[in-house]
Amino acid sequence: MVNYIVTLQCVDVPGIVRTSSAALVAIGGNILENDQFTDPVTGQFCMRTRFETATGDIEAVRSQLEGDLAFLSPKLAIRLEDSRRRALIMVSALDHCLAELLYRHDHGELPLDIAAIVSNHPDCAPLAERYEIPFFEIPVTADTKKDAETELRSLLEVFDVDFVILARYMQVLSPELCSDLSGRIVNIHHSFLPGFKGSRPYHQAYERGVKLIGATAHFVTNDLDDGPIIDQDVVRVSHARVPKDLISLGRDVERSVLARAVKLVAEDRVALVGNRTVIFSQ
Amino acid sequence: MVNYIVTLQCVDVPGIVRTSSAALVAIGGNILENDQFTDPVTGQFCMRTRFETATGDIEAVRSQLEGDLAFLSPKLAIRLEDSRRRALIMVSALDHCLAELLYRHDHGELPLDIAAIVSNHPDCAPLAERYEIPFFEIPVTADTKKDAETELRSLLEVFDVDFVILARYMQVLSPELCSDLSGRIVNIHHSFLPGFKGSRPYHQAYERGVKLIGATAHFVTNDLDDGPIIDQDVVRVSHARVPKDLISLGRDVERSVLARAVKLVAEDRVALVGNRTVIFSQ
Amino acid sequence: MVNYIVTLQCVDVPGIVRTSSAALVAIGGNILENDQFTDPVTGQFCMRTRFETATGDIEAVRSQLEGDLAFLSPKLAIRLEDSRRRALIMVSALDHCLAELLYRHDHGELPLDIAAIVSNHPDCAPLAERYEIPFFEIPVTADTKKDAETELRSLLEVFDVDFVILARYMQVLSPELCSDLSGRIVNIHHSFLPGFKGSRPYHQAYERGVKLIGATAHFVTNDLDDGPIIDQDVVRVSHARVPKDLISLGRDVERSVLARAVKLVAEDRVALVGNRTVIFSQ
Amino acid sequence: MVNYIVTLQCVDVPGIVRTSSAALVAIGGNILENDQFTDPVTGQFCMRTRFETATGDIEAVRSQLEGDLAFLSPKLAIRLEDSRRRALIMVSALDHCLAELLYRHDHGELPLDIAAIVSNHPDCAPLAERYEIPFFEIPVTADTKKDAETELRSLLEVFDVDFVILARYMQVLSPELCSDLSGRIVNIHHSFLPGFKGSRPYHQAYERGVKLIGATAHFVTNDLDDGPIIDQDVVRVSHARVPKDLISLGRDVERSVLARAVKLVAEDRVALVGNRTVIFSQ
Repeated sequence: MVNYIVTLQCVDVPGIVRTSSAALVAIGGNILENDQFTDPVTGQFCMRTRFETATGDIEAVRSQLEGDLAFLSPKLAIRLEDSRRRALIMVSALDHCLAELLYRHDHGELPLDIAAIVSNHPDCAPLAERYEIPFFEIPVTADTKKDAETELRSLLEVFDVDFVILARYMQVLSPELCSDLSGRIVNIHHSFLPGFKGSRPYHQAYERGVKLIGATAHFVTNDLDDGPIIDQDVVRVSHARVPKDLISLGRDVERSVLARAVKLVAEDRVALVGNRTVIFSQ
Repeated sequence: MVNYIVTLQCVDVPGIVRTSSAALVAIGGNILENDQFTDPVTGQFCMRTRFETATGDIEAVRSQLEGDLAFLSPKLAIRLEDSRRRALIMVSALDHCLAELLYRHDHGELPLDIAAIVSNHPDCAPLAERYEIPFFEIPVTADTKKDAETELRSLLEVFDVDFVILARYMQVLSPELCSDLSGRIVNIHHSFLPGFKGSRPYHQAYERGVKLIGATAHFVTNDLDDGPIIDQDVVRVSHARVPKDLISLGRDVERSVLARAVKLVAEDRVALVGNRTVIFSQ
Repeated sequence: MVNYIVTLQCVDVPGIVRTSSAALVAIGGNILENDQFTDPVTGQFCMRTRFETATGDIEAVRSQLEGDLAFLSPKLAIRLEDSRRRALIMVSALDHCLAELLYRHDHGELPLDIAAIVSNHPDCAPLAERYEIPFFEIPVTADTKKDAETELRSLLEVFDVDFVILARYMQVLSPELCSDLSGRIVNIHHSFLPGFKGSRPYHQAYERGVKLIGATAHFVTNDLDDGPIIDQDVVRVSHARVPKDLISLGRDVERSVLARAVKLVAEDRVALVGNRTVIFSQ
Repeated sequence: MVNYIVTLQCVDVPGIVRTSSAALVAIGGNILENDQFTDPVTGQFCMRTRFETATGDIEAVRSQLEGDLAFLSPKLAIRLEDSRRRALIMVSALDHCLAELLYRHDHGELPLDIAAIVSNHPDCAPLAERYEIPFFEIPVTADTKKDAETELRSLLEVFDVDFVILARYMQVLSPELCSDLSGRIVNIHHSFLPGFKGSRPYHQAYERGVKLIGATAHFVTNDLDDGPIIDQDVVRVSHARVPKDLISLGRDVERSVLARAVKLVAEDRVALVGNRTVIFSQ
């Protein structure tokens, strides 16, 4: 048996589930996992189905589903579960998020291919080398920013990248790139958004005297720190913790939240409805 | 439009979703919420569907679904969402769980009818009276235990009770009653099971020096404290907390865990597969 | 033996602990609990000591400590543990925080005296009556706001109130009152501050698509929602939760966070250093 | 200025704090951090003080404190904060806990010296090599167990080890070794003790259908899985998670709980009172 993952998004009308489940039966499919949700505000219907069938002919599967569901004009995607999505990771000098992703990937916990690592610093090169992932240093200055993005775009094409992970990459991407890769760039912000946007959030958190600090994984949009949130978490901190401690405690939250978000994206468990995400978690 | 909740459980075979969704379409149904799960160990398929349709004729709905799904010999239940399930609460001297359930019910947070309250102590009578729920004191001693259960069974029948909530009821029910009401009695145990079964769990927890204490809501079976778990939660405690403190902190966990579990049961969100529960939470 | 609680705050210099512990020994005191903290930014030293001694003569205790510690010009407070602090609770129409405080107080979990309840609505009068706490309805309109505060101040004096609890009181207090009661008004805000300041925070949270919602207990200052934070907590929410659900789930967080904060204040476990709190929790 | 950490444990009598704080003043000490606790059951007094003074002559400091406190017959330890405690890590085939400890140590988050790594498998040798820590493979079979421990004891002596960390070391140590290193071996157990003692705890957890799984860091005693608990934590799991998932999710809890416990031990923040720990956390 071969496993497939289908995701579907369209306006909700009666009969979608009947139609899609009939299409699956027609190709001998057996549902392994099914999640669906209708957004009450927009009326958008989202579905993710993991199913098995005897045929490995994905085009046959695709044409059956596309044909049967065409009347819904859906956003529809089908892939073999084994054909993993391809990610490119961007990082600056701090390596904790990158190290976490590489460690988990190496231990079989992240079902994706890490095609390449790009950094504006050389610091993480040895880490990339240890895991035998191609590493590209692309320095960024005010002058070279445009050329740097051209180089990045070229790598995205060469490595056939599905989505980009900003694992504490401290440069702001251009509006054009954010727009072209809409819904395909995952960032980790080192605060519990929407609190403490911008720079030095742990220092802001210390000043404000919050009793919990957090981290937020979100899709990148032109509105810095305002993109759709994929996952968040927090950790309790006492008054005795100074900014240096918050940074240290926060690192743990950042890396676990980013790793969870990346896994969700890699498994096609995240749907976008407006500026909100629908998460089909296990 | 009228809302219905359907729950279905049977052996997993290809085509269940197609059949059930087709049956819903046949009665003009529109799915509002759908959850399904196939247990990988037993192969049991569980589904909960909330849907709306123009007809209020539940018998028509029932016969359509029962007819179409008959070949699966499913465990199938259908009800109007507005026809709430009826609960009887049992309590001893400690009132915190009862008070929580009554408060939430009164504020519209628990979609069930509280038919009656039974206690082996008179202490909670004023609380019942305040919320205008019938209260029955049924004292239990070694000698009267059998008669007490006869009286309880009579109340369950008179009040047409769907399920029983043990809100810190400190008497053990007979094996016969547990068996007759299998899957229909929810208990709150004041520990994070399977740790600290039996009596005085907070004292056991203090002796053991655990750093988190908890509570467990579970269905009652003949195996005391071993029934299927519905929900659990914990709270952090420091070395400075003595048993009296643990009891106090634990009360908060007990009442919130029990309230969550009761809401899940009242909304038909709990399926039983062997000794494990499947929870279709929002 | 009689128990005392001493709190002390001053500039940190070597010898404070020696001096204060010697003063305690001089009056036959035995330390039951001691917490201290020096703020690394401001150099402020904060201490809370609970001790027992044979004498019930608090003036003797006070003069010994004040005399010995005078050279530090400290902010020093001494009280018998049994002489509870007196609180006045203010509430509007929503009763969940008030109900929680009254329930806990009634069950011996909040070591304070609830002197009176003030509301701009009549809704909570029956709840106050049930627990036999004096209830005063003081309606507030743009025109009557000044008179209302005069009436409130009069009650604070009549009932000899130590601190005020805003248990979802939806009126803004005047800058004068905030200033006069600085560090003596505890408010619960229904968001995880600094996120979602202002009105309808749960609707803001829904729009933003956060994955955790929270509540914040803080001292009231003139800067609305910017006062020193005493405690915070969060609860996870899924995409399926609409604002109505967030409001319901948030209620549970609000009442538990406020109850914890009030207990901390009632036990003199909260020190103020700038806009941050030092919490001497157990 | 030079920083010292003093820990003290003795029967509680009035005057301990006065005496010890006077001793600190006598050597020109300034308290940076002070925590104390009296166990209400045993009457044991525990204290941890971090202080600075101008002198680097630790023997002078020691003799002052030992002299002044001698009448208490205390368990007393003094060290320079910079003279780190020395640990030896033991591991079997699974590397996640070891990798976490090495990563944190490398990033300056664990104030201890990792003297050596011992394993009954060769698998973790490359990881040790990467961080340039001496690695010793000591295979263990029923026949070689005694010799293996002799070799281990020799390493403990050669490397002047203060405490041992069992980072998922799957062999049981002999009662003699446990006894000789009492309070000096930290183990991570992959369950929320006292639930699921023994082997394959995640499979046990799956069978029992718990809704939270956890991990426990504890001191090792002869009573397997019953030693004093240092730290614990849990993570929520749904019914859809099979044992393989629990193992994966549990790894994250194991490594964070062990890292926190090791940091507490390395900073002398853990006192032992009977079978319970007193944790002086920040």
